[in-house]
Amino acid sequence: MSPHFHQASQIQFQLPDWVRSLAAEQACLAGLEQRMDLVIEASRRNVAQGDGPFAAAVFEQDSGQLIALGVNQVSRQGLSILHGEIVAICLAQRRLGVYDLGTEGLPAYQLVTSTEPCAMCLGAICWSGLRSVVSGATEADAQAGGFDEGPKPADWVAELRQRGIQVQTQLQRSEAAAVLQTYRQAGGPVYNGRGQ
Amino acid sequence: MSPHFHQASQIQFQLPDWVRSLAAEQACLAGLEQRMDLVIEASRRNVAQGDGPFAAAVFEQDSGQLIALGVNQVSRQGLSILHGEIVAICLAQRRLGVYDLGTEGLPAYQLVTSTEPCAMCLGAICWSGLRSVVSGATEADAQAGGFDEGPKPADWVAELRQRGIQVQTQLQRSEAAAVLQTYRQAGGPVYNGRGQ
Repeated sequence: MSPHFHQASQIQFQLPDWVRSLAAEQACLAGLEQRMDLVIEASRRNVAQGDGPFAAAVFEQDSGQLIALGVNQVSRQGLSILHGEIVAICLAQRRLGVYDLGTEGLPAYQLVTSTEPCAMCLGAICWSGLRSVVSGATEADAQAGGFDEGPKPADWVAELRQRGIQVQTQLQRSEAAAVLQTYRQAGGPVYNGRGQ
Repeated sequence: MSPHFHQASQIQFQLPDWVRSLAAEQACLAGLEQRMDLVIEASRRNVAQGDGPFAAAVFEQDSGQLIALGVNQVSRQGLSILHGEIVAICLAQRRLGVYDLGTEGLPAYQLVTSTEPCAMCLGAICWSGLRSVVSGATEADAQAGGFDEGPKPADWVAELRQRGIQVQTQLQRSEAAAVLQTYRQAGGPVYNGRGQ
């Protein structure tokens, strides 16, 4: 027995109130551009709050009803998994009460993300039950901002499509990439895995 | 304004008490085999509890002190991201109070996982600050158990090594794979992404 070992048995993370407020202001967003505008606005505000320049949201694909809005919370919550996509997926699954958003009988759900998914989020999308992904800034834009996307197959779009997940990239790309650039120019911390 | 939208602003998940108890029984585990034995035992008990056949733990690499023990909690907690590796990484980061386990001045931390990481967990390892990974059952064993590992680069070991993360695979492989087989034979639910 080790008297020194007391493992926590609970993990909790809290979204900032401004995310909840921003989400509460939204009606159904019929067009993809409107959905992306919201996500880019969330990424911009997250930078203004001192957090990472990334946001994502889950929508009901056909109606555009917002289900969950997430922002990068790695440094604020002290957990490296808390990319915007992961936050949005967790909130959506809890809101809908299912770990598989593709459960039969549910409407199709869509992820809209300000930057295309990193390796971790790409895998997470596959297990989430999401039926489509729309992204703004590209891997090249993320790299130009100093961010690593991780060990991702070169043709990640084809990998998702093979799994029945529709993909559209580069929607409002320049607006999304501009947030990455603003963050970089302001000298915001960039956390990556380690090199050799 | 949508009066119907009330986004949760908090996510919480709880580990079963037996995981905490099992972790509390461990002293330092000097040998890699002992560390893997613990993780395989946790994966076996997780199956007995009706959950998925996967477990992982974070250890202080040199001393073998257990930092966090995690088990797959996807169905129990209703969140698709809760693979054993993700649970262990989150618990370790919260216990140590850092989102980067590779922070200068900290000892090196190691992940021991009963089955090699899926695409999501591979990415998560890169962002965690872990310095080494030891795995038991292989991707082929997972596939034989009916599980998909997702869009993972073929040479995932090299991808981790390029990022300064040591890797050892197939430690106690047959014992780890036997748990996957037991689960399959018992008809436990297998959740994968969707095919075409």
